[in-house]
Parts: sequence; C-alpha cells; structure tokens
Amino acid sequence: MRLLGLDPGLQRTGWGIIEAEDNHLTYIASGVISVSPKAQLAKRLLTIFDELTVLIKEYQPAEAAVEETFVNKNSQSTLKLGQARGIALLAPAQAGLDVAEYSPNLVKKTVVGTGHAAKQQIQMMVKTILPKASVQSEDEADALAIAICHAHHRTTAERLALMGAAE
Amino acid sequence: MRLLGLDPGLQRTGWGIIEAEDNHLTYIASGVISVSPKAQLAKRLLTIFDELTVLIKEYQPAEAAVEETFVNKNSQSTLKLGQARGIALLAPAQAGLDVAEYSPNLVKKTVVGTGHAAKQQIQMMVKTILPKASVQSEDEADALAIAICHAHHRTTAERLALMGAAE
Repeated sequence: MRLLGLDPGLQRTGWGIIEAEDNHLTYIASGVISVSPKAQLAKRLLTIFDELTVLIKEYQPAEAAVEETFVNKNSQSTLKLGQARGIALLAPAQAGLDVAEYSPNLVKKTVVGTGHAAKQQIQMMVKTILPKASVQSEDEADALAIAICHAHHRTTAERLALMGAAE
Repeated sequence: MRLLGLDPGLQRTGWGIIEAEDNHLTYIASGVISVSPKAQLAKRLLTIFDELTVLIKEYQPAEAAVEETFVNKNSQSTLKLGQARGIALLAPAQAGLDVAEYSPNLVKKTVVGTGHAAKQQIQMMVKTILPKASVQSEDEADALAIAICHAHHRTTAERLALMGAAE
C-alpha cells in the first residue's frame, strides 16, 4: 500500500511517498513544493494545490497523512500555516484518499522512539528506515517521517479492528 | 461586473454575489455553506471547496474578495479559521479569478462608515445598499459587505491606475 506524508507550510511543503508491505517499508519518492513569498496569497495556495494534485496523480498513493500543526505563539504564523494546511488536507481528500492526522510528538515517538527528538535525529532515523531515500531537506525528512508514522499506526488500527471483529 | 464576497469559517462560510455597474450595485445571490463539525477535517474542507466551486460555476463571478481574518487570541481557533480561509482563497483562484483581501475594519468603514460597527449595523447597511437582498444570517451579510467593499475599492484602484496612466 502506497502512503503519502505531508508536512505543510506556506513557503515550503514537504512530501514523501513510501510503499508499506506488512512491516516492510520502501522509499518511493519525496520532495519539497517551494512557493515564492512574493506571489499573491491565493496564487501561492493554488500552486501548492496544483503540485500536490499532480504528484497524487503521478504516484497514486492509497492514503495520506498530515502532521497536526504545532500551534505557534505568533498568531499570524499560525494563520499562515493553517491556510497551507487546509490545502494539504484538501488535495488528497479531493483525490478520494483518506487523510489521517498525527501529532508531531507521535511522529517523533514512532520514528525516533522519543517525543522530544531533534530535527537531525528524525532525518537520521528516516535514512535508517528508508536506506534508498534521497533526503535533501528537513521538510522532506519530516514528510517521510509522517508517512512512516502512518504506516505503523494504520496497521495497528487494522489489527485492533480485526481483533475486535474476531471476538 | 459580478463580484463574489466570502466570509470563511470551518463550520459556516458565508458567500454573497453582487453585480457592480459603475456606482450601481445589485444583489444577485447569497448563502451559507454549513459543514457538520462531526466529519473528518479533510472531508469538511472538501465540502467547502466543492460547494464554492459549484457556485462559482453557477454564478460566474469575475472577481472575488475574502476578508482578512481577525487573528484570535486562541491559537486553535486561528488555526481552524486559517484552514477554512485557505480553501476560500483557493476555490476562486482555481477558477481563474483574482482574489482581493480586505481587513474587517476597511469592510466596516466602507459599508457602515466606521471601523467599529456592530454586526447588526453591517446587516442593516447591507440591506439598505442592496434592497433586494434576502439576508438570513450574519455570515451572509458579512460576505455581501465584503463584496460591496471590493466593488468600491476596485473602482478606486482602477481610477487611480487610469490617472497614473494619463499623467
């Protein structure tokens, strides 16, 4: 099953796609959608939406996961992030994908083993879990970490559902 | 020229469409997109996006305007509003419309004459400016007020551009 992880941002949206077969994860692709801060806000959001739509069509993931946003103390930043996040949730939903959400702490705990991991630790663990991954930036590493987190927790949820059905 | 005003929210998104000919404004249509708070976030955003896309196709506005969001002290609310606002900016941009943004103060000042108008004053002035408007809710009145604000300021901007060109 192919999974898409997204780390949204108004200037940089990281994306990562992995293949999850039982407990085996394989790197498929990843990248960053960069948008000029000079463009009109609506145009910037449209660029993010269009690029996400294209890559969903190209790689055909079956499910998506987006990080729950860290709520900033600066409310202008929170608003900006919210706008980008709306697009990151919309694009896969429009393509018919289920979109899961995970807290940054759960992503870190799943990938690194602790909820207070540094950015470099995430990047290192992503490279360990996905040796073929060519990860150029933090945003890509974070997006792949979210996909890994979803691969882990969706099967747990499935197992629990099966156990419930067997009772 | 047909103008679309949008007052975005995760539960209720107000929309209003007016026709602006020189200084004459006519009410065309307005309404509220209500979304169940029980649905998955991505699905809620998709509902807002789909309904906006349908009404843009139906009424064919030439330009759109969205209110600049009042940044709340509660950052969770700001984030939610940001997500809905992202969709309200995206839908008209995807349909090829220019999307203007106005601060709540400018909208009030344009419609009521003061930046500190109460909600009821806005609703009353919208009904005075657009006598045919059937306005059932604050969200609709706000959306129409944003469209009226855009009608006023886009012609001002045009006049200034013409004056600049004539110099």
